[in-house]
Amino acid sequence: MAWHLALVIEPAASDDSRTDFSATFRAVDPSSPVLPLGELSAQRGDGVFESLGVVGSHPQEVDAHLRRLARSAELCDLPAPHAEQWRQAIERVARGCGPGESVIKLILSRGIEHGAGPTAWVTAAPAADFTAARQEGIRIATLDRGYDSGAPLRAPWLLQSAKTLSYAVNMAAIREAKRRGADDALFVTSDGVVLEAPTASLIARIDGVFVTPTPAGGILPGTTQASIFSWLRSEGGSTASREVTAADLGRADAAWLVSSVRLAAPIREIDGVRLPVDLDLTPRLNDYLLSPRD
Amino acid sequence: MAWHLALVIEPAASDDSRTDFSATFRAVDPSSPVLPLGELSAQRGDGVFESLGVVGSHPQEVDAHLRRLARSAELCDLPAPHAEQWRQAIERVARGCGPGESVIKLILSRGIEHGAGPTAWVTAAPAADFTAARQEGIRIATLDRGYDSGAPLRAPWLLQSAKTLSYAVNMAAIREAKRRGADDALFVTSDGVVLEAPTASLIARIDGVFVTPTPAGGILPGTTQASIFSWLRSEGGSTASREVTAADLGRADAAWLVSSVRLAAPIREIDGVRLPVDLDLTPRLNDYLLSPRD
Repeated sequence: MAWHLALVIEPAASDDSRTDFSATFRAVDPSSPVLPLGELSAQRGDGVFESLGVVGSHPQEVDAHLRRLARSAELCDLPAPHAEQWRQAIERVARGCGPGESVIKLILSRGIEHGAGPTAWVTAAPAADFTAARQEGIRIATLDRGYDSGAPLRAPWLLQSAKTLSYAVNMAAIREAKRRGADDALFVTSDGVVLEAPTASLIARIDGVFVTPTPAGGILPGTTQASIFSWLRSEGGSTASREVTAADLGRADAAWLVSSVRLAAPIREIDGVRLPVDLDLTPRLNDYLLSPRD
Repeated sequence: MAWHLALVIEPAASDDSRTDFSATFRAVDPSSPVLPLGELSAQRGDGVFESLGVVGSHPQEVDAHLRRLARSAELCDLPAPHAEQWRQAIERVARGCGPGESVIKLILSRGIEHGAGPTAWVTAAPAADFTAARQEGIRIATLDRGYDSGAPLRAPWLLQSAKTLSYAVNMAAIREAKRRGADDALFVTSDGVVLEAPTASLIARIDGVFVTPTPAGGILPGTTQASIFSWLRSEGGSTASREVTAADLGRADAAWLVSSVRLAAPIREIDGVRLPVDLDLTPRLNDYLLSPRD
């Protein structure tokens, strides 16, 4: 894999008042050894992350991603990330990107076992080519998430609204979806409430309204979903965050999985049942998502 | 942290017929950089692991741990670990242990992103001192695992019976237990069935029978629990693997959290309610667990 650039960050305390954090960044060769075996990210998936899209050398929605990183850190009792430090790290790796689409990953780990504090790094790499998913659409398989819809509020230690490094279940769900002949999974609660995909949010058009499942502590608030909703409203569309049942989804006349790097992938099949792809709106959505956004 | 030894392993194919795998081991300094940033263990907690107790230079229950590693790998669609290769790696790091108690960790990761295959390593380090937990006992807080008791069989992609590197929820549960004034957590399903602790199995003595929750796909089969059950039966005790409800647990006259390194920690309080510590049996259990076992 070709990498653009990677920086290891020495995390600053949240009250650090420096204006220039470049002395806390160390450029590393991401294919060389960097992390010791005691890294708790590697031992226990113990940390949080973000993936940002980059178009040319413009990182998309930096503030929204940094807010979500901070929220994930809080849910995991990790020290608050210093927003300005991370912003400067993102700017630095973004300058090494492009042309075309890239992906920036932010990782905040609990650190080295028995160590002093968190470790952190930022990487930039070329994005995969998602043209087919964006244009032809994807087939999804709905999969039971095991939880009922009340679980996240009842049991916040399940970390359902934090973007943690513990993604083994997310990856297993995608493998199961592929075994079922689909391209991606869509999680549903044990009581039939639609949640999210393992690495994307759902937007469905139901009775003329663009609907996304309410977070309510049970799913990750989608940065790309929020950006699309702003754009749809600016275009005169109606949007709603509300509970979406599997039955509601059956009434959708179009739906998308949306995420920072694959962008808007129209769903063309749910559990083997075809769903029309909106061939007018979908390219406009992706044109919007590929324009510089802050 | 003082480490004894660490080996990076080049995983052999399961049909590799070599008798000596030493050429596939590379001793590394575990506090130096070893893993590249593309490691999927660090990016996504995507891999499986085992922790073995070591007494002197004797690794405990190697076969049972290797069987569970293989089972976890299978559940995660990882290539089957080569048992003889791992056994030799364990023997090699165990020779560097002791005196006293140590812990050996086996990690099998999905590998480097876009790489050729899994990566693997084995570490040995001194164990923490668990004398207080073993002698004075621990306080536990029961925590909702979010799942109902049918979820694991219905949704195997939840990986509930695999020991994956995605332990963020396990760690969050222990933090929540500590916030509640306890030392450890005990997971219970949303419908009131007792499961396991984040890093240990439960054994409870109920009506004179030593009972552990049935795995049934929902919990990790405990290597230490199985070893204790064999010993209890050899001592004339009755044992049973069966469904344990929260109400059953309330009737227990003694209970322990058991695991490979902390060994048998008697539970002296559940959600603030005192439980007697069996001061005769508990030290005998730990003496047994500290004897060489295969």
